[in-house]
Amino acid sequence: MHPPAKGERLWVEAIAPSGEECSLLVGGLGLHELALEDALTPGHPPKYETFDGYLFLIAHTPDRDAEEGTRKIAIFLAKDWVVTMLRVPLERLDTVSARVQRDPDRYLQTPAVLAHLVLDHMTDGFEQLVEDLREEVERMEDEAYERPRKAHMEAILEQRQEAGRLARTVRSQRDVSAALFRTVHPALPKKIQPYLRDVYDHILRVHEQLEGVRDGLNAARDAYMASVNTRLNEVMRTLTVIATIMMPLGVITGVYGMNFEWMPGLHSDTGFWLVIGTMFALGAGMVAFFRWREWL
Amino acid sequence: MHPPAKGERLWVEAIAPSGEECSLLVGGLGLHELALEDALTPGHPPKYETFDGYLFLIAHTPDRDAEEGTRKIAIFLAKDWVVTMLRVPLERLDTVSARVQRDPDRYLQTPAVLAHLVLDHMTDGFEQLVEDLREEVERMEDEAYERPRKAHMEAILEQRQEAGRLARTVRSQRDVSAALFRTVHPALPKKIQPYLRDVYDHILRVHEQLEGVRDGLNAARDAYMASVNTRLNEVMRTLTVIATIMMPLGVITGVYGMNFEWMPGLHSDTGFWLVIGTMFALGAGMVAFFRWREWL
Amino acid sequence: MHPPAKGERLWVEAIAPSGEECSLLVGGLGLHELALEDALTPGHPPKYETFDGYLFLIAHTPDRDAEEGTRKIAIFLAKDWVVTMLRVPLERLDTVSARVQRDPDRYLQTPAVLAHLVLDHMTDGFEQLVEDLREEVERMEDEAYERPRKAHMEAILEQRQEAGRLARTVRSQRDVSAALFRTVHPALPKKIQPYLRDVYDHILRVHEQLEGVRDGLNAARDAYMASVNTRLNEVMRTLTVIATIMMPLGVITGVYGMNFEWMPGLHSDTGFWLVIGTMFALGAGMVAFFRWREWL
Amino acid sequence: MHPPAKGERLWVEAIAPSGEECSLLVGGLGLHELALEDALTPGHPPKYETFDGYLFLIAHTPDRDAEEGTRKIAIFLAKDWVVTMLRVPLERLDTVSARVQRDPDRYLQTPAVLAHLVLDHMTDGFEQLVEDLREEVERMEDEAYERPRKAHMEAILEQRQEAGRLARTVRSQRDVSAALFRTVHPALPKKIQPYLRDVYDHILRVHEQLEGVRDGLNAARDAYMASVNTRLNEVMRTLTVIATIMMPLGVITGVYGMNFEWMPGLHSDTGFWLVIGTMFALGAGMVAFFRWREWL
Amino acid sequence: MHPPAKGERLWVEAIAPSGEECSLLVGGLGLHELALEDALTPGHPPKYETFDGYLFLIAHTPDRDAEEGTRKIAIFLAKDWVVTMLRVPLERLDTVSARVQRDPDRYLQTPAVLAHLVLDHMTDGFEQLVEDLREEVERMEDEAYERPRKAHMEAILEQRQEAGRLARTVRSQRDVSAALFRTVHPALPKKIQPYLRDVYDHILRVHEQLEGVRDGLNAARDAYMASVNTRLNEVMRTLTVIATIMMPLGVITGVYGMNFEWMPGLHSDTGFWLVIGTMFALGAGMVAFFRWREWL
Repeated sequence: MHPPAKGERLWVEAIAPSGEECSLLVGGLGLHELALEDALTPGHPPKYETFDGYLFLIAHTPDRDAEEGTRKIAIFLAKDWVVTMLRVPLERLDTVSARVQRDPDRYLQTPAVLAHLVLDHMTDGFEQLVEDLREEVERMEDEAYERPRKAHMEAILEQRQEAGRLARTVRSQRDVSAALFRTVHPALPKKIQPYLRDVYDHILRVHEQLEGVRDGLNAARDAYMASVNTRLNEVMRTLTVIATIMMPLGVITGVYGMNFEWMPGLHSDTGFWLVIGTMFALGAGMVAFFRWREWL
Repeated sequence: MHPPAKGERLWVEAIAPSGEECSLLVGGLGLHELALEDALTPGHPPKYETFDGYLFLIAHTPDRDAEEGTRKIAIFLAKDWVVTMLRVPLERLDTVSARVQRDPDRYLQTPAVLAHLVLDHMTDGFEQLVEDLREEVERMEDEAYERPRKAHMEAILEQRQEAGRLARTVRSQRDVSAALFRTVHPALPKKIQPYLRDVYDHILRVHEQLEGVRDGLNAARDAYMASVNTRLNEVMRTLTVIATIMMPLGVITGVYGMNFEWMPGLHSDTGFWLVIGTMFALGAGMVAFFRWREWL
Repeated sequence: MHPPAKGERLWVEAIAPSGEECSLLVGGLGLHELALEDALTPGHPPKYETFDGYLFLIAHTPDRDAEEGTRKIAIFLAKDWVVTMLRVPLERLDTVSARVQRDPDRYLQTPAVLAHLVLDHMTDGFEQLVEDLREEVERMEDEAYERPRKAHMEAILEQRQEAGRLARTVRSQRDVSAALFRTVHPALPKKIQPYLRDVYDHILRVHEQLEGVRDGLNAARDAYMASVNTRLNEVMRTLTVIATIMMPLGVITGVYGMNFEWMPGLHSDTGFWLVIGTMFALGAGMVAFFRWREWL
Repeated sequence: MHPPAKGERLWVEAIAPSGEECSLLVGGLGLHELALEDALTPGHPPKYETFDGYLFLIAHTPDRDAEEGTRKIAIFLAKDWVVTMLRVPLERLDTVSARVQRDPDRYLQTPAVLAHLVLDHMTDGFEQLVEDLREEVERMEDEAYERPRKAHMEAILEQRQEAGRLARTVRSQRDVSAALFRTVHPALPKKIQPYLRDVYDHILRVHEQLEGVRDGLNAARDAYMASVNTRLNEVMRTLTVIATIMMPLGVITGVYGMNFEWMPGLHSDTGFWLVIGTMFALGAGMVAFFRWREWL
Repeated sequence: MHPPAKGERLWVEAIAPSGEECSLLVGGLGLHELALEDALTPGHPPKYETFDGYLFLIAHTPDRDAEEGTRKIAIFLAKDWVVTMLRVPLERLDTVSARVQRDPDRYLQTPAVLAHLVLDHMTDGFEQLVEDLREEVERMEDEAYERPRKAHMEAILEQRQEAGRLARTVRSQRDVSAALFRTVHPALPKKIQPYLRDVYDHILRVHEQLEGVRDGLNAARDAYMASVNTRLNEVMRTLTVIATIMMPLGVITGVYGMNFEWMPGLHSDTGFWLVIGTMFALGAGMVAFFRWREWL
């Protein structure tokens, strides 16, 4: 393999390249071994580095199937060639391949155009994901209010950690995008810069919306905690009300259960009804008192 | 459409422009397609970008009817023309149109003057909103102290998220305003700069006051939690007091309810009254004790 | 009104100036309308701006009577004139007027000296306030430990918000002071700079001490919460102890209250005393157990 | 000891050097006494300093046996000599020694290559540790949900402090690595720079992952607290249910335990069964009510 | 007093200087009145300022007897003279005086050497203090787990505020040290710079360790809260268990305490033992149930 002849363009799409293929790339195009190593490291965070003749960057896109939650692509971009490197094929990039195959001149004439197309699709994935997350978090909040269960708390805390992980990846990718549109390099013609800045704007927006998602998760946690506390309060009020009504009644019955030979009204026919009436009056008074105190 | 002739001025007020109208703008005034795309994206955050012949900016203003809480305007500002673009007409800007129609020379001679007028009105909306928010948050706090209900907590947490969302928008708009008054560009004559700085000062102030609003919401949440805890304490004290008074009385009546043939005072006429007296004394002693411990 | 003749100096002390007076200032001294507008806006935060011939700054000083907690002064400072503008007279500045009247040459020869004197007095107000706040917060903390009441929590949260508001004002004023001693401008002769830096140092110190005040308020809140929790614990322990002692006794009396014809010891003279003895032993054992578990 | 002759290279591997040996180094290679002192201070944090003829740096690597959790190496790196200094031999660096002994030319021709190799191994240690921590924290979280015990909380809080300590060390080492790959110094030839940047990238990644570990520990703490609260709720619900069912039953039996001569149904044969039936019905009704309220 | 003649050196050690002595210093050495004022202000935070002919700095060192927790020294350092100013003698600096008296040439030849010696001793104090704090905080944490008392919480919160105050002082002193080793000034010969940087490194390390102390205090607070919660849980479980066992037993005895003429087994000799047996079985069953649920 060797750099394309003057006026020609080269796009190498390497998917899980073997060691031999890598050597070809290193030998033919002069890729730096460290960059290649990073490109092949699973889960390497977004990264940007300029070399003499080319740029090297790693970008991520969300993928629910991936262990870390995202998949990455590595791009080596020179003035007249570009290498894209993946460990597994990314469905999201199928349309890119299709478009390039339909109209290779448009995308390969300036390899940076192809690189922008790829980055744009990678970033799109984050935008969709954040949209989904926002809805999910809203649902979580509603659940936390209505019926706080331990599983909800687990889901909230789990989601919060994932949002944190995502935010770190997005932050790195944002820095990569920012560095990219600010770089002056032969591989990046001036007319591509507004497009790169557009990618940066999108990822920046994702970053801001993620902040909103995290706010939402904190709100969900607070809502859960407040719900649990409120329910505890409710339970304790019930207990207190029941005990406060029943205990004095129990003492009254206890009094007339004593075995003294003489107690007032013991031998009267109306004694029983008097005591029962007193008990009802006391109970009703208690209930009225609690209603007044807004405990019931 | 084409740029105005020398000495003439052009203001294009585009409301929900069709694709065709957009093409006219791109073709006639040289607007960049990406800027136009951002201008047409619903809810695009505040943004500022300089192009060769013109500036592009997006500014927001609060609108309770909008889904995101704010509506945006996009402004393309050149030395001798200005394009303002909206998706729906903004009531807040009606007075701007009226003023420009009454005195077009004053506002259109330098298009930046018109742009400043629009920005100023957009920013005013935030100032009014923050004022309203401060009052609302104060009311929330008072409610949380007096009568903590789950619905209050929901409102507090909801409001806190909205304040966060608002703060992010205001932060972006503040950055836009800052960039604007620091830019040196033919479209921005020197004499307009103090006015742009004034817009920046206003939005900066809104940003600071929003910090106060968030402090207030945190205080409201803490107040709610403290209120719930305090009420729980009160409830539990009541329960404890009632149980502590009633249970020993219950045991005393229980003792004299035992069926032993002989118990002290069982056959005496004063036995009953002695026991009842003891019970009253015990109960009163307990109440006195709890008052001393400040539990009642 | 017009700028003073060469070698002369002018100090305009404007208190709640009318529109007419303002026009005189704008016309005579060339004050920018926007600066004047800021100077007249109630509660405008500290601000610093340089204009061609003069500096404009707004400084605050605490005032318990003011709605926002602080009052402001606006100063327009040129090489040979100075305008100070207030909405209401500030008691704190009376001594300044007195000193200038006694020795006008010293303070007016270089108007920056007068401006420094005013700023110094404004800053002094914050130093006294912070000193007061520290003592108040310490008192709040002590109260929160000893006797946590809802009103304390309210006071703590209220104070925390006010400290936040104050910190924002002080932060702005610190930035104003920093900008001031770093500015190179004809209105600020070199020999005044150490004095301006001194003002900056003082306000910086206030800012740091405010951090301490906020730490103290957080500690007070935590203390309140811990106190409430500890008291709840205490109450619940009491309830548990009383219930754990009384309930088994209740069951014992209940057993001998059953109406079986034959129960052990029912017809014995010592049966009663045996049961009573058992009950006492059980109760004493429980108390001993709870003391051992440190619940009493 | 003296610097190597032209074209020669020198590697001094000092392990717990004596005072005499240190004097040799100071005298022979011109090491600064302060740098040497830092190199010999146990637990000195990562540090980077440039001197005229050489660079001085301290790097850490995790070691579970070390009191502070990490061990350090000090490196003095010049154009043609390098000194590595340890207090105790580090197992992790054995392979480095072995590789250098096998191929001294490759590593000693440019001493910076050796220094990079050492740094790379030191950084590797952090990567492994962070991986371990992530798994441990996940396990802690699961435990906190399932069975919250005081010992778990202790472990979480202990781990959180250690993660904080580690993060501080990693932060310092990150700054050292960043300074190193940005330094222009005769001891650092240009071709080594991508390798130094690679070390920086690795430690940066460790730093980000540590953020994730701390998020995880906060989640574990929140999970513990939520679990404890949920269990308290469960316990209190049980108590309330039992009390609410049993207390009214107790009052009913109390009523018929009163010694009035006449009570309804007292002398009827079915009276007893009627009361027992009522009690069962009441108890079952209560249980049904609680099920409906989802308390059971 | 006047600056020393060429080639001579002057060290003024002023302890609580009178107004007259201060005037001598101002007149003789040209000290700026503002610097002198700061030097004499009790508790003035660390500060650094360069004047034309000399440097002025304030440094702190911990002192348990001092009201603010630290004592300060002010140093005026010129090329050939140095003034150190204290309000009360500092024991920590006695060795400095002794060393200078034994070997005045070494320390006074370059006054910056003396200044470094003083700063080094001042910084040492912080290092010892932080070491003590770390141990104390560890002890606090252990106590919070084992036996949470209100006094512990008070101590934790108190300590946290003091650590905050200390951190602010150390932060200022770190900035002073950083500014010092970066300043190019005739009073600071080049060869002293690594020593000043060493002082900076030490205070930087203190700052980082203070972060650890604060982490520890937060952990102690969390531990206290978790302990209190866990104990509350334990108490409530006990109450619930006792109530759940005793209440049904109470109802059973209540049933047989009813005065119906006929109840099953009332006249049987074994009735009593059957009921007692049932009660024991029920109680034992409950205990088994609670053990199974891990509540006991």
